[in-house]
Amino acid sequence: MNRITSLKNPTVQLWREWVNDRKQREKDGVFPAEGEHMVQEALSCSCVKTLIVSEDDADRYAKCIEAANPNDVFIVSGHILSSLNSTKSPQGIMAFCHRRIHRPFLPHPGLFVALNAVQDPGNVGTILRTMDAAGFEALYIDDQCADPYSAKTIRATMGSIFRIPIIQSHDLVSDLKAMKDRGCQLIAGDLSGEDLFSRTPIPEQACILIGNEGRGLSEDLKVLANMRVRIPMPGSAESLNAAVSAGILIYDLLRERMKG
Amino acid sequence: MNRITSLKNPTVQLWREWVNDRKQREKDGVFPAEGEHMVQEALSCSCVKTLIVSEDDADRYAKCIEAANPNDVFIVSGHILSSLNSTKSPQGIMAFCHRRIHRPFLPHPGLFVALNAVQDPGNVGTILRTMDAAGFEALYIDDQCADPYSAKTIRATMGSIFRIPIIQSHDLVSDLKAMKDRGCQLIAGDLSGEDLFSRTPIPEQACILIGNEGRGLSEDLKVLANMRVRIPMPGSAESLNAAVSAGILIYDLLRERMKG
Repeated sequence: MNRITSLKNPTVQLWREWVNDRKQREKDGVFPAEGEHMVQEALSCSCVKTLIVSEDDADRYAKCIEAANPNDVFIVSGHILSSLNSTKSPQGIMAFCHRRIHRPFLPHPGLFVALNAVQDPGNVGTILRTMDAAGFEALYIDDQCADPYSAKTIRATMGSIFRIPIIQSHDLVSDLKAMKDRGCQLIAGDLSGEDLFSRTPIPEQACILIGNEGRGLSEDLKVLANMRVRIPMPGSAESLNAAVSAGILIYDLLRERMKG
Repeated sequence: MNRITSLKNPTVQLWREWVNDRKQREKDGVFPAEGEHMVQEALSCSCVKTLIVSEDDADRYAKCIEAANPNDVFIVSGHILSSLNSTKSPQGIMAFCHRRIHRPFLPHPGLFVALNAVQDPGNVGTILRTMDAAGFEALYIDDQCADPYSAKTIRATMGSIFRIPIIQSHDLVSDLKAMKDRGCQLIAGDLSGEDLFSRTPIPEQACILIGNEGRGLSEDLKVLANMRVRIPMPGSAESLNAAVSAGILIYDLLRERMKG
């Protein structure tokens, strides 16, 4: 077990880089998990690299501390923990976790989502949470998306970050084309697509494509898709929130699966 | 047209209260609309009380300025506008708008949503946006919910705040009971309800009830509801984001309406 009281401690400096700098997080393969619930999820999947607890809360979180490797535990002054946390009233406990790296082309069939330039961290995290509720396999995410490993994204996942594999795709068109070639149906959410409520049936293996909040999907992804579906909007709003759109499309597929 | 250059100007002080203080906003019946798109929506529904433009952007927003009553227009120093705005990079234009007050018991039938203690402003705003896309009538909102007129909520509505009436209910149970007595079916989103995918049909007039992010709906609202529906979660997540749940339930009703 380690103790740190100074903000200037080099370890604290590194932690702050992990919180603030996407590149450094990527390089070191880590991500932050804030609060007791998320730390418990991280401990239960054995991916805790560093457990950080405020000295005032060490008794309260004794079980979490016991569950971690003592070498990985840091008891710190309250102001150090506050400086690392993205919320206004941090819970006195957080962890940095190891990422698992997932490559494209999972061998098994199933249901997937792919995100193209989805900018809002809350949307990315919320979509992962919905996929986890609906039993989807994995999320493909391109380089223009918000960082799936930022504190804000992870908070929105409510723990799903530990369960749904994220595949960082550096060339989403070619990764999706490879999936299509193997029989996966690509379903694009698209304002000029066919009506969701009267679409044709979708086979066992499918991937829902969700585009940028303002511009939607890129043209090459629209062209690549097997089917483009439009969520009907009989009212006055011109578009839906990206996480809500994804939720409606995910549950539309699930309805077809579960009702047979 | 008016000009203000000092942050200490009493009018600016009042604006800052409107931005920061829910009670003051309520008392004066106003809400903020940030950025060009929202200001245009506000102008087109004639509810602009005060139009505020940064002096550096006055040429760019000449059309908006012309569309407003000159007495209501304030050209201000950039730092004044920044101090009023909730976003990091404000667009140089905002407005304060008049609220319309809507009473319970709209006479016409239709589809409604009622929120019980939904805490996140983004969720409240996103639900309003989804209702607007789906052609719903009005939103009931109780006193424990996030302020529907805060900058963050309004940003999430993407303009729907100007189209969907909001009924602030000080006693949601009795307001919903009155709707039920008039033949409106109350549909509660509830983790222990019947399966959404095999629910019984829902009549013409209905209201979807959405509860708090952590606790769900209050017991008395669950008891009052005609039907309690559970969104199936065959995966591992224990719950869905409130705005995503609402979106799935709203589109489930719409599917029934549109497919006949």
